[in-house]
Amino acid sequence: MKQLADIGERAAIRRIQALLTKGKQTRGIGDDCAAIDLGNTYLLVTTDMISQQTHIPPQMTPYQMGWFLVAINLSDIAAKGGTPLGVLCSYGLPKETSTMFLTQLAKGANACAVRFGTTVVGGDTKETTEITLCGTAFGTVDKDEFLSRDGARPGDVVAVTGRLGNAGAGYYALQRSPREKKYSKALLEPHPRLTAGRLLAQLHSVTSCMDLSDGLSASLYQLQERNTVGFEIDKDALPLASGLPQLHTTLGIDPYSVALHFGGDYELLVTLPPKRVEKTKKTLQQHGILFTSIGRVTQKKKILLREKTRKKILSNKGYEHFKTHNFSHHKQVRAVQQRF
Amino acid sequence: MKQLADIGERAAIRRIQALLTKGKQTRGIGDDCAAIDLGNTYLLVTTDMISQQTHIPPQMTPYQMGWFLVAINLSDIAAKGGTPLGVLCSYGLPKETSTMFLTQLAKGANACAVRFGTTVVGGDTKETTEITLCGTAFGTVDKDEFLSRDGARPGDVVAVTGRLGNAGAGYYALQRSPREKKYSKALLEPHPRLTAGRLLAQLHSVTSCMDLSDGLSASLYQLQERNTVGFEIDKDALPLASGLPQLHTTLGIDPYSVALHFGGDYELLVTLPPKRVEKTKKTLQQHGILFTSIGRVTQKKKILLREKTRKKILSNKGYEHFKTHNFSHHKQVRAVQQRF
Repeated sequence: MKQLADIGERAAIRRIQALLTKGKQTRGIGDDCAAIDLGNTYLLVTTDMISQQTHIPPQMTPYQMGWFLVAINLSDIAAKGGTPLGVLCSYGLPKETSTMFLTQLAKGANACAVRFGTTVVGGDTKETTEITLCGTAFGTVDKDEFLSRDGARPGDVVAVTGRLGNAGAGYYALQRSPREKKYSKALLEPHPRLTAGRLLAQLHSVTSCMDLSDGLSASLYQLQERNTVGFEIDKDALPLASGLPQLHTTLGIDPYSVALHFGGDYELLVTLPPKRVEKTKKTLQQHGILFTSIGRVTQKKKILLREKTRKKILSNKGYEHFKTHNFSHHKQVRAVQQRF
Repeated sequence: MKQLADIGERAAIRRIQALLTKGKQTRGIGDDCAAIDLGNTYLLVTTDMISQQTHIPPQMTPYQMGWFLVAINLSDIAAKGGTPLGVLCSYGLPKETSTMFLTQLAKGANACAVRFGTTVVGGDTKETTEITLCGTAFGTVDKDEFLSRDGARPGDVVAVTGRLGNAGAGYYALQRSPREKKYSKALLEPHPRLTAGRLLAQLHSVTSCMDLSDGLSASLYQLQERNTVGFEIDKDALPLASGLPQLHTTLGIDPYSVALHFGGDYELLVTLPPKRVEKTKKTLQQHGILFTSIGRVTQKKKILLREKTRKKILSNKGYEHFKTHNFSHHKQVRAVQQRF
């Protein structure tokens, strides 16, 4: 009999999706959030589980675990253009966990929620053998401002907020020096792009949007699957994180490989018509948010990486749960956003 | 340094509650659901985590695990008088889990949601060492129909929906015969009391309400703590589950002990003014729902069990996570509803 390890997380999720009864008032299955029709608005809901063996690097403090749990869920609200209404946090913890650990965990979760304009409104604690944390975020968005994963059209520009590879730079900085703080903060205490999401929603400029938690290559493959399009990404246009060049000097790691595949950045990946790029860029810049065009949507269902005149297929190196994976040295620090 | 095992789950939750920033538009912290102000209505949200070592008896099929996860979350919506809008299910599963297991799990969750008028709108799957499932339910209720845990007043009648001890009868039936199906279904596939909750909300008759997932004694102690009141429960008035007398004959187990302490029944516990009892009882009966007065709210902060003319303190035997507990033979089948 087949095991989950044989089929991988995405195939597992497709099986679940196929058997779910569809709600008349629901959209967004397989999107960053489910969206429930409340009249003029959608109620956005999303949940993410993280566990000790797959998501929590040993250097992560309990405060950071709480922060991270809330941040990754708020990132999904951001990716749909939403305003958060609240967060629920469930903590599965071994019984020998110290009370101090729990306090720090809850403080981190609270701090992240408050920092991004919302609150932790409830949760659950249960006894488990390994640390297993489950967060749920919910929010609202006007129906005509909902940023779907569906809608990318050939001719659209591909763009991202912020820089790529900050989380990866943090991961490698920690490998080198376990107490490193400058770069690892981006990895361990990510910031959901709620302001960027709201601005993009209000501008009505993007044709599709998702968060970059899985890394650029994996996210592009997910967008491709939903939109029956292809992408051409310009390697030289990628906005590299500031820590990446140093990484190259000290550890010999290719900055572009990190920016393309690492994940954990929680930036937004969007497609938009070329004529909308300038205004969008300007508006986001006015709020201190970098917005960079990195390529274009194509008709051909291929994802290509262009370097000067050469083009090659961009490989899909996103980390997938359950399946043994050739990117497994990243295993401990990837928070994959696969959901159904 | 103190561990969670030293302080128990409820003290852990009080610590979390104390440090959370309170949202201006939120009520219901420590209640069955959090309630977020949406204008005329509250958005109700609740989450429950269950894990292999504490909540999933070996006889439970994957279909039943999915059903159970959805049912216990919908029960919280029921306890606040709400109408469900949807459910999210996160499945933490070992990678050697069969795909059949996952399919059955998702089918059970879907079946329970659909049976009670809603749908599973999304979720997450992650790799964990033990089965750890986290459900979230959300719904709405008109503000003036919200059934709070707060509000019990001395002189009120204490009442319950349905019968007490069905889950306990199922547990013991399984102990005796692992393939037993007649009684164990109540334990493994509970029914959330959404119709009862809606009727109680529309009648505006109850002064406080919560679900009975923790068992009657533990639930009364939780209500007492929030309302600064006491209770006097009439032993002879308890509506015993039909399987309990047989349990007494075959295993010598006291039916009243099961009805008072076992938990897992997912009935509703309410308080209401004496003059409202008859109409409430009649209305619920018209919908095939038993409604039984079992005692009264008192001024004295004690919880007493009255048997004919004798009164004694009713002990609090609810199972609490993290803490070693003298009720631990029930450990595997209790789904404690402690939350913050």
